[in-house]
Amino acid sequence: MKNKVLFVVTIVVVFLLGLLASSIINRKSEAKYQYVPKVNIAENEPRNEVWGENFPLEYQSSLQTLDTTFRSYQGGSGMTDMLEEYPAFVILFAGYGFSKDYNQGRGHAYAVDDVHNSLRTGGPQEKDDGPMPATCWTCKSPDVPRLMNEIGVAEFYSGTFAENVSEVVNPIGCADCHDPKSMKLRITRPALVEAFDAMGEDINLATHNEMRSLVCAQCHVEYYFDKTRPGEEGVPYLTFPWKDGMTVEDMENYYDAIEFTDWTHKLSRAPMLKAQHPGYETFKTGVHADRGVSCADCHMPYKSEGGQKFTDHHIQSPLNNVSNACQVCHREDANKLIENVYERQRKSSETREKLEHLLVSAHLEAEKCWNLGATEEQMKPILTDIRHAQWRWDYSAASHGASFHAPVEIARVIGSGLAKAQEARVKLARMLAELGHNKPIDMPDLSTKAKAQEYIGLDMQKENAAKANFKENVLPKWLEEAKAREAKMDDAKTVVSTAND
Amino acid sequence: MKNKVLFVVTIVVVFLLGLLASSIINRKSEAKYQYVPKVNIAENEPRNEVWGENFPLEYQSSLQTLDTTFRSYQGGSGMTDMLEEYPAFVILFAGYGFSKDYNQGRGHAYAVDDVHNSLRTGGPQEKDDGPMPATCWTCKSPDVPRLMNEIGVAEFYSGTFAENVSEVVNPIGCADCHDPKSMKLRITRPALVEAFDAMGEDINLATHNEMRSLVCAQCHVEYYFDKTRPGEEGVPYLTFPWKDGMTVEDMENYYDAIEFTDWTHKLSRAPMLKAQHPGYETFKTGVHADRGVSCADCHMPYKSEGGQKFTDHHIQSPLNNVSNACQVCHREDANKLIENVYERQRKSSETREKLEHLLVSAHLEAEKCWNLGATEEQMKPILTDIRHAQWRWDYSAASHGASFHAPVEIARVIGSGLAKAQEARVKLARMLAELGHNKPIDMPDLSTKAKAQEYIGLDMQKENAAKANFKENVLPKWLEEAKAREAKMDDAKTVVSTAND
Repeated sequence: MKNKVLFVVTIVVVFLLGLLASSIINRKSEAKYQYVPKVNIAENEPRNEVWGENFPLEYQSSLQTLDTTFRSYQGGSGMTDMLEEYPAFVILFAGYGFSKDYNQGRGHAYAVDDVHNSLRTGGPQEKDDGPMPATCWTCKSPDVPRLMNEIGVAEFYSGTFAENVSEVVNPIGCADCHDPKSMKLRITRPALVEAFDAMGEDINLATHNEMRSLVCAQCHVEYYFDKTRPGEEGVPYLTFPWKDGMTVEDMENYYDAIEFTDWTHKLSRAPMLKAQHPGYETFKTGVHADRGVSCADCHMPYKSEGGQKFTDHHIQSPLNNVSNACQVCHREDANKLIENVYERQRKSSETREKLEHLLVSAHLEAEKCWNLGATEEQMKPILTDIRHAQWRWDYSAASHGASFHAPVEIARVIGSGLAKAQEARVKLARMLAELGHNKPIDMPDLSTKAKAQEYIGLDMQKENAAKANFKENVLPKWLEEAKAREAKMDDAKTVVSTAND
Repeated sequence: MKNKVLFVVTIVVVFLLGLLASSIINRKSEAKYQYVPKVNIAENEPRNEVWGENFPLEYQSSLQTLDTTFRSYQGGSGMTDMLEEYPAFVILFAGYGFSKDYNQGRGHAYAVDDVHNSLRTGGPQEKDDGPMPATCWTCKSPDVPRLMNEIGVAEFYSGTFAENVSEVVNPIGCADCHDPKSMKLRITRPALVEAFDAMGEDINLATHNEMRSLVCAQCHVEYYFDKTRPGEEGVPYLTFPWKDGMTVEDMENYYDAIEFTDWTHKLSRAPMLKAQHPGYETFKTGVHADRGVSCADCHMPYKSEGGQKFTDHHIQSPLNNVSNACQVCHREDANKLIENVYERQRKSSETREKLEHLLVSAHLEAEKCWNLGATEEQMKPILTDIRHAQWRWDYSAASHGASFHAPVEIARVIGSGLAKAQEARVKLARMLAELGHNKPIDMPDLSTKAKAQEYIGLDMQKENAAKANFKENVLPKWLEEAKAREAKMDDAKTVVSTAND
């Protein structure tokens, strides 16, 4: 009797185990997440929403970059007007577009809108009008690789900014970094590939982990427009100055050797360099890069939704996502980690602002020297010092995040900037004495952006009116053209599956 | 039959388990390590070897500080002559003892010898002779707390350096940090306790973990000799300038408010501050301190010998002990960790050397101004800038390890030093122009220590002769006195146990 009971119980248990095993093997709940494409994504598809039909989680998270309520910098919200915040910048960039308008970027989703709105792109009336070349669009949209594939790279760079307003309309998105067939990470901007070539490296050998930074390095880098490229003379060809290395000195030497100048300063007449945003270069000098951490690890950490793990495409400050971004490795309290970052930023800013202040003085003192009759020859060594000092300041200021990514390197850069600025100012003091002005110069009122812009002779009313006219009368027309063009692309989209809807 | 076998086997197994349990409970092998004092250690016992009889592992490891083959700084060995290495230091310290002799310390075991040998302590012939007060001995030996207990704190500080040569003979050791009865960590130097009082804090509330740093903070800090202490006027009373905080600005404000000056610079006549070695203050601003790491965690990590775990009293650079010091927390390769440290040091040194160079120029330019007839009133703002800039340089240079402990803070300090030095030099350029010298000054030859010392008018032959005479004729005599005195202490030592010998 006893044995019979045992026998029956065993049979029941074994049967239940069988059910469990079957459930485990089938992994039904996971099968739901298998990739079943709904549409065919064309090779040059620039529209993020089309990719989003196949990858809804990634696409929907990328739309979160529209949310600007968290801004780590300044602790404010929305879009910081850097010139309102730091009127001194108007002096530093006198004679250059950044003295008109310098807003903190709002994130990938606004890439195209922000370019429309910036005073730096002017108010073109016709397609061959305006101050900027097509090259300025390069990093703003997956329409750019589309255009490059359609018409050619140098051909794209040869165009005007204005003629591409109707072409470049989709903000930074899927096609910028992904292959539409395999979804593997890919480099779509030739400048990065060419920079690797120049360094004697093959970007195709990059690991997946390296690619998780390199797709960002397509844009978050220092660059310039090379108009001397053999065979493409006169074309503002987007180029990274990495041939001899990525340090502040390597790139400075590169620019000095080719006597490159972004603009001539309006007050000091110094031959200036504008550091764009050497974020990747500076990141590489920090401890996170040293430990093999990629950009995506912190700015696009893994996330789970409805049981499915995916890369969060809400690209943002890790400070707004500490638990997924930082605490995966750092077991400290979130508030402490945030305060650690702010402390680095605060200390870096303190020194950088000292350098900024010295540079403003140097530009104004140089202006005074010119006014008092200094000669080109007398001014040359001083202007070289100013060029090099401001390059260091800008390398530190424009390399977003560098005061956290690489606080030791940035401090070194600012330190050498301070020493260069001081060389300039000691020479300027001697020059001013020689010209009969042996005392501090009278400083203009730089307490607001408006006053600083007036001092450097900008007609902001005119600039604003031209932009308003562009946005009211020109832009809508060109955006209509884009709509009509994209409507035809819509017809070409093929639906391959309606499964799992 | 079967049951009988089972029964016997069970009995055997249970018996063996009993043996094992008894062995575990007795913990015979550990009992060997139980603390059985061999001698009674007197309250004021300064001799490390007496403590060593009770604590041989700790004592023997402390003797390893005699080994100077590893020096992380400069990668060299032995004792770096900082003035040979950086002849510019001779200019920076002109008029002060450090321009005569500035050697890198060799470690605790040499504390007393190094003081005998330093030219800074001169060549006293009699006990009331020589340039230094007894206060200079404060951090060199456990004889100091003995003397303070015997004669009183202010009474100790009131003496001469020379009269204590026969009293202070045991190098830094056990009694400096430990209670002889409980072996608990204790603070033996009143200056630290008084500094906590001044800040409104009670050092008795410090945790054991905090004490593992605070015993070091008795000496590895910024300090000055306060001769205005109420009731002790004229006594060079060792004091930490922490009342308003420990940052470079806090301590500068403190010194400025009381118009304290370590010395008047021989060339520039600036009222100088000598940063001593604000190691604790700077450490506190870094990330290791922020994470609750103590000095001892890295400089005296736990160690095992013959199965016994103890605190390694070979106090040294963690770079010579990466596996015990760093890799307990950091799972990176030792070479990478070392390179990470060197990189921080390299980058910090690069900027600090720029500041050093500017300071040398400023001192020499100020000297030139005086020579050309500048007035006290004209020079005052310049000299204040020099004072503040060099304080920042010295705070960074003398706070041993700070470029690793707190690279971001040190960079901030050096940055503000660069800005101050540049203010001084711009003013100096104007002043020199006003005095008819509108050009760079002629720089003296500062390529060697000897040339720099000659420039500032040091009679090194005389200094060396006085020291040689002291070491040959005076020191041996005074050390004989010490020997005789300690022989009597020997009689007082009580042996309490000869167990486990």
